[in-house]
Amino acid sequence: MVGYAFMGAAHSQGWRTAGRVFDLPLTPRLAAVCGRDGQAVRAAADRLGWAAAETDWRALIARDDVDLVDICTPGDSHAEIAVAALEAGKHVLCEKPLANSVEEAETMTAAAEQAAARGQLAMTGFNYRRVPAIALARRMVAEGRVGTLRHVRVTYLQDWLVDPSFPLTWRLQKPYAGSGALGDLGAHAVDLAQFLVGEPLAGVSALTETFVRERPLLDGASSGLSAAGGGEAGFGQVTVDDAALFTGRFASGALASFEATRFATGRKNALRVELNGERGSLAFDLERLNELYFHDHTEPGVSAGFRRILVTEPQHPYLEAWWPPGHGLGYEHTFVHQARDLVHAIAEQTAPAPSFADGLQVQRVLAAVEESAAKNSVYTAVPAPVPA
Amino acid sequence: MVGYAFMGAAHSQGWRTAGRVFDLPLTPRLAAVCGRDGQAVRAAADRLGWAAAETDWRALIARDDVDLVDICTPGDSHAEIAVAALEAGKHVLCEKPLANSVEEAETMTAAAEQAAARGQLAMTGFNYRRVPAIALARRMVAEGRVGTLRHVRVTYLQDWLVDPSFPLTWRLQKPYAGSGALGDLGAHAVDLAQFLVGEPLAGVSALTETFVRERPLLDGASSGLSAAGGGEAGFGQVTVDDAALFTGRFASGALASFEATRFATGRKNALRVELNGERGSLAFDLERLNELYFHDHTEPGVSAGFRRILVTEPQHPYLEAWWPPGHGLGYEHTFVHQARDLVHAIAEQTAPAPSFADGLQVQRVLAAVEESAAKNSVYTAVPAPVPA
Amino acid sequence: MVGYAFMGAAHSQGWRTAGRVFDLPLTPRLAAVCGRDGQAVRAAADRLGWAAAETDWRALIARDDVDLVDICTPGDSHAEIAVAALEAGKHVLCEKPLANSVEEAETMTAAAEQAAARGQLAMTGFNYRRVPAIALARRMVAEGRVGTLRHVRVTYLQDWLVDPSFPLTWRLQKPYAGSGALGDLGAHAVDLAQFLVGEPLAGVSALTETFVRERPLLDGASSGLSAAGGGEAGFGQVTVDDAALFTGRFASGALASFEATRFATGRKNALRVELNGERGSLAFDLERLNELYFHDHTEPGVSAGFRRILVTEPQHPYLEAWWPPGHGLGYEHTFVHQARDLVHAIAEQTAPAPSFADGLQVQRVLAAVEESAAKNSVYTAVPAPVPA
Amino acid sequence: MVGYAFMGAAHSQGWRTAGRVFDLPLTPRLAAVCGRDGQAVRAAADRLGWAAAETDWRALIARDDVDLVDICTPGDSHAEIAVAALEAGKHVLCEKPLANSVEEAETMTAAAEQAAARGQLAMTGFNYRRVPAIALARRMVAEGRVGTLRHVRVTYLQDWLVDPSFPLTWRLQKPYAGSGALGDLGAHAVDLAQFLVGEPLAGVSALTETFVRERPLLDGASSGLSAAGGGEAGFGQVTVDDAALFTGRFASGALASFEATRFATGRKNALRVELNGERGSLAFDLERLNELYFHDHTEPGVSAGFRRILVTEPQHPYLEAWWPPGHGLGYEHTFVHQARDLVHAIAEQTAPAPSFADGLQVQRVLAAVEESAAKNSVYTAVPAPVPA
Repeated sequence: MVGYAFMGAAHSQGWRTAGRVFDLPLTPRLAAVCGRDGQAVRAAADRLGWAAAETDWRALIARDDVDLVDICTPGDSHAEIAVAALEAGKHVLCEKPLANSVEEAETMTAAAEQAAARGQLAMTGFNYRRVPAIALARRMVAEGRVGTLRHVRVTYLQDWLVDPSFPLTWRLQKPYAGSGALGDLGAHAVDLAQFLVGEPLAGVSALTETFVRERPLLDGASSGLSAAGGGEAGFGQVTVDDAALFTGRFASGALASFEATRFATGRKNALRVELNGERGSLAFDLERLNELYFHDHTEPGVSAGFRRILVTEPQHPYLEAWWPPGHGLGYEHTFVHQARDLVHAIAEQTAPAPSFADGLQVQRVLAAVEESAAKNSVYTAVPAPVPA
Repeated sequence: MVGYAFMGAAHSQGWRTAGRVFDLPLTPRLAAVCGRDGQAVRAAADRLGWAAAETDWRALIARDDVDLVDICTPGDSHAEIAVAALEAGKHVLCEKPLANSVEEAETMTAAAEQAAARGQLAMTGFNYRRVPAIALARRMVAEGRVGTLRHVRVTYLQDWLVDPSFPLTWRLQKPYAGSGALGDLGAHAVDLAQFLVGEPLAGVSALTETFVRERPLLDGASSGLSAAGGGEAGFGQVTVDDAALFTGRFASGALASFEATRFATGRKNALRVELNGERGSLAFDLERLNELYFHDHTEPGVSAGFRRILVTEPQHPYLEAWWPPGHGLGYEHTFVHQARDLVHAIAEQTAPAPSFADGLQVQRVLAAVEESAAKNSVYTAVPAPVPA
Repeated sequence: MVGYAFMGAAHSQGWRTAGRVFDLPLTPRLAAVCGRDGQAVRAAADRLGWAAAETDWRALIARDDVDLVDICTPGDSHAEIAVAALEAGKHVLCEKPLANSVEEAETMTAAAEQAAARGQLAMTGFNYRRVPAIALARRMVAEGRVGTLRHVRVTYLQDWLVDPSFPLTWRLQKPYAGSGALGDLGAHAVDLAQFLVGEPLAGVSALTETFVRERPLLDGASSGLSAAGGGEAGFGQVTVDDAALFTGRFASGALASFEATRFATGRKNALRVELNGERGSLAFDLERLNELYFHDHTEPGVSAGFRRILVTEPQHPYLEAWWPPGHGLGYEHTFVHQARDLVHAIAEQTAPAPSFADGLQVQRVLAAVEESAAKNSVYTAVPAPVPA
Repeated sequence: MVGYAFMGAAHSQGWRTAGRVFDLPLTPRLAAVCGRDGQAVRAAADRLGWAAAETDWRALIARDDVDLVDICTPGDSHAEIAVAALEAGKHVLCEKPLANSVEEAETMTAAAEQAAARGQLAMTGFNYRRVPAIALARRMVAEGRVGTLRHVRVTYLQDWLVDPSFPLTWRLQKPYAGSGALGDLGAHAVDLAQFLVGEPLAGVSALTETFVRERPLLDGASSGLSAAGGGEAGFGQVTVDDAALFTGRFASGALASFEATRFATGRKNALRVELNGERGSLAFDLERLNELYFHDHTEPGVSAGFRRILVTEPQHPYLEAWWPPGHGLGYEHTFVHQARDLVHAIAEQTAPAPSFADGLQVQRVLAAVEESAAKNSVYTAVPAPVPA
């Protein structure tokens, strides 16, 4: 694994736990973790349960005891590490967003396709597809429970940037993060929409905004930035969006509405999805991730209504291995499920989903959003994916 | 009152009840109701409590015992009746949307301004401003409880057009209704957003769609249409939008997101509003109209969260006259409150709100939405209101 | 109508509105209202829409233009007025609880039975049976949608007595109110439980408590009390319960749990009902009175869950006459429905429900609760109703 | 660890994870797991991550590499194992309910007290105290945020016994389980009530019921029962309660209401708690375990209401070590927290809570419930705990 901060801790929990809960065809071993600060990475290895620590990702990739490289770094290093790992014959799991640009994502996807011919697999870490309620929603859409879709509505609302004195971390700088709420939150929203609907977005019209344009600089040590100075180092420019709103169309005719922001006061992790179809509707809120709401429009109106499915039954996705009904799961279970599914894909040599091509498609939507926002919100087509 | 269908019944309830619950400076008398079908309008007068019936709105306006004309007809007749009534020296209450075009709304607003100089008042019937929870939300915004606004999010979702066999009523034909979900539902959404924020929208970017383009014709009798034929009369074109999605900006910098649709399966009357500001957030859903959600971001995070204010306390707007705490109000109470406030305005010769100018401003937003939708979603400015 | 305070205002709204919304076989006329204070009752008559005012209920009953007497006074005068009105050949609607003792209720029920033989009807004002969601719940129980019942859970929580400085009103004194939370709130809870289940409670085990045993005296004028003195008149004993908790059994085997209190801080009018049966469950909360929750246990578990039925569809009880789906009703609509149903019963000479016998049965349960509470909570049988 | 079924898997997850997430003063090592079936226990050891397997709990206790014995067996073996382990100088964690009788629990508590003098600690596994929202609720009660308590309401509703063809497992037989819903669910309810209030229950009045008195026998192999026969082996008696309802009093005057059942159709794990005090109220539902509802009654009524605290902030109990705000936890996190706190107690030689004395106190309440139910619901005092 490369990187050991928030995402690294979550991925570690996934790798450590998957084989303790699910029957896996292969047993994950936490061989080595990599980070630039030798002391810190050794402490992280001990804490998180990795057998060894490396300070150069190239050395990690070169290790014989590493079959899979899990990339948990900021987006600006994804492409280089992923391509090198694939070329070195490793399987790759790469955190989302896949890259900071369409070009990088295209390169990565091409590398993934070549690697696939050699039996190496590549997966993008859109972990929310593996919330059981989301997996159930996808299954219900595929089964026709909602019918022809008319509306898709996804908002991803957080509030940790409301305070103007929050400092200028890497997530607020374009060279590191690529974009702001758009890539951090909007990428999840777009991936979920396309996953649930089962087709790519055809085009978008977008508005973006940076509400707070200057923020206090962090001191250099704590952030991996080249930024000068100590705590009172002054202010720097925020170079990414604080919020992105966009509407769009799916080829099959459904309308879509998206909003990604880190300024929605009181909303902590409100990734909300609603699908309205001719036969029914589905609704989900990540702040209540064990619940899926379903309205069955084929029922008599006198007793119809949105029902709250507590997605904790043994017949629900991933639930066969967990606790009795009503004993809910949490956020990090998505990483356990991701680890489980990738291990199965490797053992069975099936294509993992979301693929790098799926990650690229999200990147194309994000690029279209930025292009539309730059061009006075004009409707901007998203290039269709090339069939594999 | 002109018109006695759904809106006429609701307005009648308002006029009959206001003086029985509130202390009013003047006593409303239900003098006469008007409709084209003499037998039907007499039956409606008896049912709804009007002393007389008329079949020509010009005769209604000419009556000496009429001081106020309440217009509850489809939008295509609003301008002609309202202008004539104002010129005849009557006060006017006109249902929303104020008109079917900006031009009509401008004419009406000009007539209202001239009438105001003579002491006649004109009010637009955006009744949802008078849901107590909405009135409370506006008060809290004005008091600074949410601070500088960053986000405004309004969706108005219904589902009564999902079935493609629903017939081609007047609401689905542009000559009568002006527009579809946009004017019917979007007008409320836009008015509430501008009311709550306290300023007009500066511009919008929009998508609209007509999902079901042909619908069965009604037979002529029941709809006021010239449409030919009996029940199996064939199909006609739907000439209005089924759904409208738009984003926008307020001059002060807040971003706004809107959605109006009659295809959101399972959503019956889901007018949902959320405001996010630097100091707090407010949220409302018309399907639970006695509740307002408030997050106070100035509180310590350890015990902060969205609170559900049950807007039934005596210190809440309009509640001083109703029932004890927790004994909720319903939809038609908004018309009682509208009647009350208009009677006060008349007695006290104050300007009623929403004025015709407010109705015109909503119309300008709707026109900008249609223009943007016609021009590939390009961001389209909304002309600023001319100061009175 | 006798009495014109909170209940009188609500009943007046019901009588005024029923015929304006529903097609009634007879037209209610608000002939006269009665109260002891001549000036106040004349003002109330004008406000509430009654044609005349009386200061002696015997005079009211003697009027030829009165066919129905609606009793909205405190419980201690119900029996005398109701019996006299029935004997005078009037129909009677009597507010709940029917009386302050089983003995009074028995006398009233006997009078009602004799009157029925002469064509005069008597109804008890348990208005919550006519919340559409409750009427729908009863219909669904009767249709077998929940199957054999196992659990009935009813809590009625308010909080207006939490503050120890709230004064000693008539509701806190046994001679006027009979009991405290038990008769005020528990009576509704018991009636709803018996109505929904469709059978009487067989026995109960109870705890009651008076948390605040002394409260400030009101001055004499405002309360109909003989209490001496002015505002600083000192303190008086609270002689009723502040809270009552009881469990019970239905003859068919279901267990029941009840709680009535005016000390549940933050709960304003939380009459909550839940029924669990072998085939399904129903849940209701009066603070969200347009909603009924239903879990259908005959569905596959993978997509089952409590659904929120928005009880605003035309096929729902009473809704054929009101607004489109999603346009909710309020508290006072129960009185409109009560008026409607009683007018129908009178016109069609059918027995109205809840009858005085139903009111008596509730009284027997309340008496059993008080007896159990006085006897160390021992399980106490409720006498079975005598078949009519 | 003794036992490796549902509870064993959950405890294993706790022991494996605690040191990977929290900074612990000692590092847990999963030395050995014990079960009667050698093959099955070895498989469980491999799956769950235990270094060794034993088939005799006495051998487990005798191991030098075991410092702590975690007892996850049915209640009938708790006393024997726990006392032996303590006498062998091991720390003990024992699942709830502590025992199947007050006598056993007294013996265990005495053993725990003697062991404490030697530095061995004993803890009862009421894991729900360590749901962050419950820990926060306790902190808020202790800080006086709800003031003098008036009402405590706890229901624990499940539905897995609704189907009469569900077989006669050990949980339905008194010799193994001690009691039914009472000991399984009611024990949690009682412990939480006493924990949150901070004092023991003074007395109770109870009803219990067994709705389905005969159930199909399991075949012998799968259940540890002596029951004969194969799948069609016939029926056996259910010898425990299906549901228990009880009311009670705390010494300080608050009233309490409890319900435990496995027949509440549609309720999967609905452990619901509400506390009403003079200054505020708290509410919790285990089906939404990341949320705590709080009503602050000291606020102005105009903007007061139950707020939803998303208990995922770094300043919330246990959250300093987990994910960012809004990224919820699940059921098994309670076992991670339990492991963490017990490790701290061992390292710091502090008394762990809940102690065996706390488990004994719960047992006394359960015994009083059964006594009251057997004596016609008469109010039955709970013996006060002997001060340590």
